[in-house]
Amino acid sequence: MSSALDRFKQHWARISVLDQANAVLSWDMETFMPEDGVHARSEQVALLTELGHRWLVSEETARCIEDAEKETAGCDYFSDEASMLRVARRAYEQKVKLPDTLVSRLARTTARANTIWINARKKADFSMFAPVLSEIIDINREQAELLGYDGHPYDALLDLHEPDLTTAETDRLFTELKQGLVPLVREITGSGTIPETGFLSQKFDTAGQERFGLRVLSDMGYDLRRGRQDRSAHPFTTSFTPYDVRITTRFDEDDLLSALFSTIHEAGHALYDQGLPVDLVNTPLCQPISLGVHESQSRLWENIVGRSRGFWKCYLPVLAEEFAGQLDGIGLETFYRAINRVTPGFIRVESDELTYNLHIFIRFEIEKELVSGTLGISDIPESWNTKYRDYLGILPPDDAQGCLQDIHWAHGAIGYFPTYTIGNILSAQLFQLAIQTVTSIPSDIEKGNFITLLGWLRNKVHRHGSRYTFSELVRSITGGKMRVGPYMAYLTEKFREIYT
Amino acid sequence: MSSALDRFKQHWARISVLDQANAVLSWDMETFMPEDGVHARSEQVALLTELGHRWLVSEETARCIEDAEKETAGCDYFSDEASMLRVARRAYEQKVKLPDTLVSRLARTTARANTIWINARKKADFSMFAPVLSEIIDINREQAELLGYDGHPYDALLDLHEPDLTTAETDRLFTELKQGLVPLVREITGSGTIPETGFLSQKFDTAGQERFGLRVLSDMGYDLRRGRQDRSAHPFTTSFTPYDVRITTRFDEDDLLSALFSTIHEAGHALYDQGLPVDLVNTPLCQPISLGVHESQSRLWENIVGRSRGFWKCYLPVLAEEFAGQLDGIGLETFYRAINRVTPGFIRVESDELTYNLHIFIRFEIEKELVSGTLGISDIPESWNTKYRDYLGILPPDDAQGCLQDIHWAHGAIGYFPTYTIGNILSAQLFQLAIQTVTSIPSDIEKGNFITLLGWLRNKVHRHGSRYTFSELVRSITGGKMRVGPYMAYLTEKFREIYT
Repeated sequence: MSSALDRFKQHWARISVLDQANAVLSWDMETFMPEDGVHARSEQVALLTELGHRWLVSEETARCIEDAEKETAGCDYFSDEASMLRVARRAYEQKVKLPDTLVSRLARTTARANTIWINARKKADFSMFAPVLSEIIDINREQAELLGYDGHPYDALLDLHEPDLTTAETDRLFTELKQGLVPLVREITGSGTIPETGFLSQKFDTAGQERFGLRVLSDMGYDLRRGRQDRSAHPFTTSFTPYDVRITTRFDEDDLLSALFSTIHEAGHALYDQGLPVDLVNTPLCQPISLGVHESQSRLWENIVGRSRGFWKCYLPVLAEEFAGQLDGIGLETFYRAINRVTPGFIRVESDELTYNLHIFIRFEIEKELVSGTLGISDIPESWNTKYRDYLGILPPDDAQGCLQDIHWAHGAIGYFPTYTIGNILSAQLFQLAIQTVTSIPSDIEKGNFITLLGWLRNKVHRHGSRYTFSELVRSITGGKMRVGPYMAYLTEKFREIYT
Repeated sequence: MSSALDRFKQHWARISVLDQANAVLSWDMETFMPEDGVHARSEQVALLTELGHRWLVSEETARCIEDAEKETAGCDYFSDEASMLRVARRAYEQKVKLPDTLVSRLARTTARANTIWINARKKADFSMFAPVLSEIIDINREQAELLGYDGHPYDALLDLHEPDLTTAETDRLFTELKQGLVPLVREITGSGTIPETGFLSQKFDTAGQERFGLRVLSDMGYDLRRGRQDRSAHPFTTSFTPYDVRITTRFDEDDLLSALFSTIHEAGHALYDQGLPVDLVNTPLCQPISLGVHESQSRLWENIVGRSRGFWKCYLPVLAEEFAGQLDGIGLETFYRAINRVTPGFIRVESDELTYNLHIFIRFEIEKELVSGTLGISDIPESWNTKYRDYLGILPPDDAQGCLQDIHWAHGAIGYFPTYTIGNILSAQLFQLAIQTVTSIPSDIEKGNFITLLGWLRNKVHRHGSRYTFSELVRSITGGKMRVGPYMAYLTEKFREIYT
């Protein structure tokens, strides 16, 4: 009855439930909290974060894990028992290196930073955000030293978001991708072909956008009894348990595509979270593997499905009906090419599929330099703008469309951005395998039937929670390692076809 | 620097901040949480409640209070120092009697009860709610025994909501009120006068209702930078700190008055919470005195202000403009009489000012019997309906309009209802004094200027937080005790004038 494993589970459940409560506070902070609520909220989040950290790194955790490990010594490596203890031990050994004071300082600083960022972005003034960002970078550098690293201090931060990924390996993957991508972007932008997009320059009623988005969400299999969609400055997904997984978006009547693709993107995240193993709720296994795996899900749905010809074969008529009179005479080919138009732009979340990764390379490079100290906080805008000119050939007109566009730094997350490109790379490899195994997926998508694809993802990825590491997952599905090849092949085929 | 008082304050702040976090979870549960989120939410709320309780009743709390008491022994009785320690000691000595297990059981049960109640109410089926209500009553009876009482076990529960109020004293006040009220209601309903209300039987667009409500809220002085209005099954106000005080309402296009007066009512609560002393945030003093005092504020705004001729002199034209064409030709007198029409009805929160207290008497009587065990859970609907027939002359058609209408029992709150009538009684006494002191208040109200009234309430009530007890507050303002007289006089004068 009261085995060591049960004692471990009970102890872990408290940590997990506390984290869930904390996530509700953060969700509220970014959706509904009145402006002046921020000071008290910072204290609330800091308290729960500090408490959760203290519980996690307590001697009781160490003892619970150790006792349960002894008790379950004979279990298979991938059994529930061995896997949850392995994940717990990793988290314990990583976090025990961080003192309470640092953790609550980071929580308090980032809770405060959120509102500062919102206001700085509103006023397009990086200097308003710089002081608090400077604190955040300092805390992150301190964190890296405490966590330890072999190569670059950035390794330690990457590891918080993408376990076991190193700066060197990221450099290698990104370099390979860049070698394929840069000539392809040059070829595309130099092709002389420019897809027609004039019909997108209309006002699209935001209520209609919301209705259409909800229709797609629901068709994809996002369960609204276990979730909801709200609005926030920056779209995000948050999951308390698989029973309560919420997404947000932002609507702009001048931009039909932004909310639409962000909705599909966040739904991709949410499907992963809703598909985590409910029978393992409150254990270390009822969580995603990593941000990269998470992003592979959102990217797969947003781009490979959501920006495909097949998807719009089904949904263009629905969209045209929602916006009656506004899309008359726009055929599938025109629409498909328009939503896949390659245009270097300022805003990462609104960028096309092809240039997206260039935005990531820029952030990765700046973060590495901030962490190693070779770039000062006040130099960010200039470095940012220079890189945008060099990589994308455009110069951001202000900081709101430049280095203030993303919420991640305000959240204290340094080492997060690379996981977006990691997710892109993985998404193509997963989709390639899915359609090889379940050959009806492409034609099912054309009918708005996503159950075959979702079923494959649920079976291969979601239901395992964090039983596997990133590379174990990839090996279990592909039999090998993650490869850049399928992603480059997918991009090349798709965009050459459109641009010739 | 690190005085005993500082150590006490620091310790108390953690308890307070944790309570705030818990209140956010409850707010979310009743406004936005998806249906399936409830199981995990029960665990989250139970954990934070148990933790907060454990911190409050810890030996550290006892030691902190004792040390700080010694250090501040020379302070005035009503000084910040002495007052916060007095309030803290009272809370500690009350709650230390309740074991952790009981507290978390109540929290877990009521979190679950909330959704059960919503569904039972939807289906108008008390039997769905009965099992969980039975658990709640059992826990409350257990609680009463642990807390202790001199007279009736109900005393112990009343004391949780209205410190120092006894069942006997409540009986005395309610009897005095009943003696005045029953003949007055008889006189009114037998007067032969029936105010015209036909113009209210129209559809009133809920967006218009919301806009008008927000206008009134804002004019009243409710600060939307420190608050927001949402929708929920049962309107409520929740306060995390004075910086974040939220209200909810519900809209019905067939009922213009319901959302309107509930909005003013909740705003009355919210003004109190927003007016609590921010310099004492996270101390025991930055909280309301009691539910009765809280209700005196909401009732004063809802009824004495919101249902007055003067208020509508200003707002009827605004309302008529919002609902253009729908209120043409409805004069101030007609409108004033319509919103004050006395009609015995089923729903407490929609009842008129005069019969409202009869609803409370019924709940008070049933609760007393449930706690003493002379009434069984399954007998509630019959007892409820019989009392409605006897007191109001009407028979509820189903449980949704009967004993399932209120959320309070699902919240675990037994001994809460009497505070509504206590609030009514106090509201009249406060308003009488306010207009004696600041004679411009009535004419200011006619101009939609509430700053003089709010200023008086802020000065006399809000800014003191919980420095005074209920009777100390009444003494500080009136020089004497709370009296039923002013309330009866107010009701008699108002309704005789309308009904003759």
